[in-house]
Amino acid sequence: MKTIAFVLYPGLTPLDLIGPLQVLASLRNADPSFEATVVAETLDPAASDTPLSLVAERTFDDVPAPYALVVPGGQAGTLRALTNERLLDYVRSAAAQAEVTASVCTGSLILGAAGLLKGREATTHWSFLEALREFDATPVKRRWVDEGAVLTAAGVSAGIDMALHLVARFTSEEVAKAVQFGIEYDPEPPFGGLDWAAAPRQMFAGAAAAWIKEALSGAPDLAARLAARV
Amino acid sequence: MKTIAFVLYPGLTPLDLIGPLQVLASLRNADPSFEATVVAETLDPAASDTPLSLVAERTFDDVPAPYALVVPGGQAGTLRALTNERLLDYVRSAAAQAEVTASVCTGSLILGAAGLLKGREATTHWSFLEALREFDATPVKRRWVDEGAVLTAAGVSAGIDMALHLVARFTSEEVAKAVQFGIEYDPEPPFGGLDWAAAPRQMFAGAAAAWIKEALSGAPDLAARLAARV
Repeated sequence: MKTIAFVLYPGLTPLDLIGPLQVLASLRNADPSFEATVVAETLDPAASDTPLSLVAERTFDDVPAPYALVVPGGQAGTLRALTNERLLDYVRSAAAQAEVTASVCTGSLILGAAGLLKGREATTHWSFLEALREFDATPVKRRWVDEGAVLTAAGVSAGIDMALHLVARFTSEEVAKAVQFGIEYDPEPPFGGLDWAAAPRQMFAGAAAAWIKEALSGAPDLAARLAARV
Repeated sequence: MKTIAFVLYPGLTPLDLIGPLQVLASLRNADPSFEATVVAETLDPAASDTPLSLVAERTFDDVPAPYALVVPGGQAGTLRALTNERLLDYVRSAAAQAEVTASVCTGSLILGAAGLLKGREATTHWSFLEALREFDATPVKRRWVDEGAVLTAAGVSAGIDMALHLVARFTSEEVAKAVQFGIEYDPEPPFGGLDWAAAPRQMFAGAAAAWIKEALSGAPDLAARLAARV
């Protein structure tokens, strides 16, 4: 069985996890050799950055060597995870054997903290793009960056696009298109795509600085390095 | 406080809930008079159609009169909900007082079963569109259909587009655009939008028929009426 493991941890942004999970959980309909699962340190409900709590299906110990790993991002919860050694150990050891380790949004900072981005091109949420340099990665502003063993996606909703790419990579474009019909992914943002010239950079930089301060009070060196990049 | 309540029930498609939740939970940053919550019959973890389980924040009894209600859809779990009288009673009584009752995907069938679609235009997942006629609604193939008090969205991912529309309706286009930057919603489906001429209609009709049979064995009349429409 090829197991695609989604990493759950407290405080994450649930859309980072569920966008690609909804896509990749469908793979088994086309190819029963794939399964998706959600792994966490414990099976207790984990809070998210919304009023919804999430419960994993298995523990890290249950799934030591998944075929693929997907690490979601978030706000303060994700920054806190950068000093969670149990989580980083799992990501590192699972990634060492996985076909691909993927991240969504600031999940790429977790890959960076686990040492997986050294010398690679990578992406993340636009407001944290320069912070990737602190993990010896070269930031690239793209919807997703596929480096083979490591695949990083831009912010939150980009996980859906990345997951469809991954379905095609694992199986075929035909299967990816069938999955896309399943989630009726025919986007119509009411005001069109993002107008980057009008990005509210100061607002997001202020929020990022506050999350760093809140989450990394116990790691002042890392906090200072990241704060200088947002 | 204007409370936007997302309805959680067993077996739903989590992206139907979390797409719009991630969008509407951000509203409080722009206007603290709004809050999002997730309501369910109980606070026990509810299974979804993925390996992830979800836990609500409050019970139906805690939030009898939300400002807005959002009802997600799904596969067999949603069809089963069509005969869940406790859920339908809550949707009916909350909707009677709400500014707007919204649905995502086959969540519109739940609105229909609660009697909220009579004489209205509505949409749903493309594979269930004709089934809306069984609830005296006129099916419309659009990304979302805003009838004022009732707002229905197309399948799964359409909930994100609908929620951005709702943010603009509740506040302003400017706020909706800021939220859109937060979730970096600048879609790039790897193989483009959906090619409707190539929709796998037979595959989805077969799946829909199987879900109806599985979920509505205790309601053979409703099962037969819906099966004739998929």
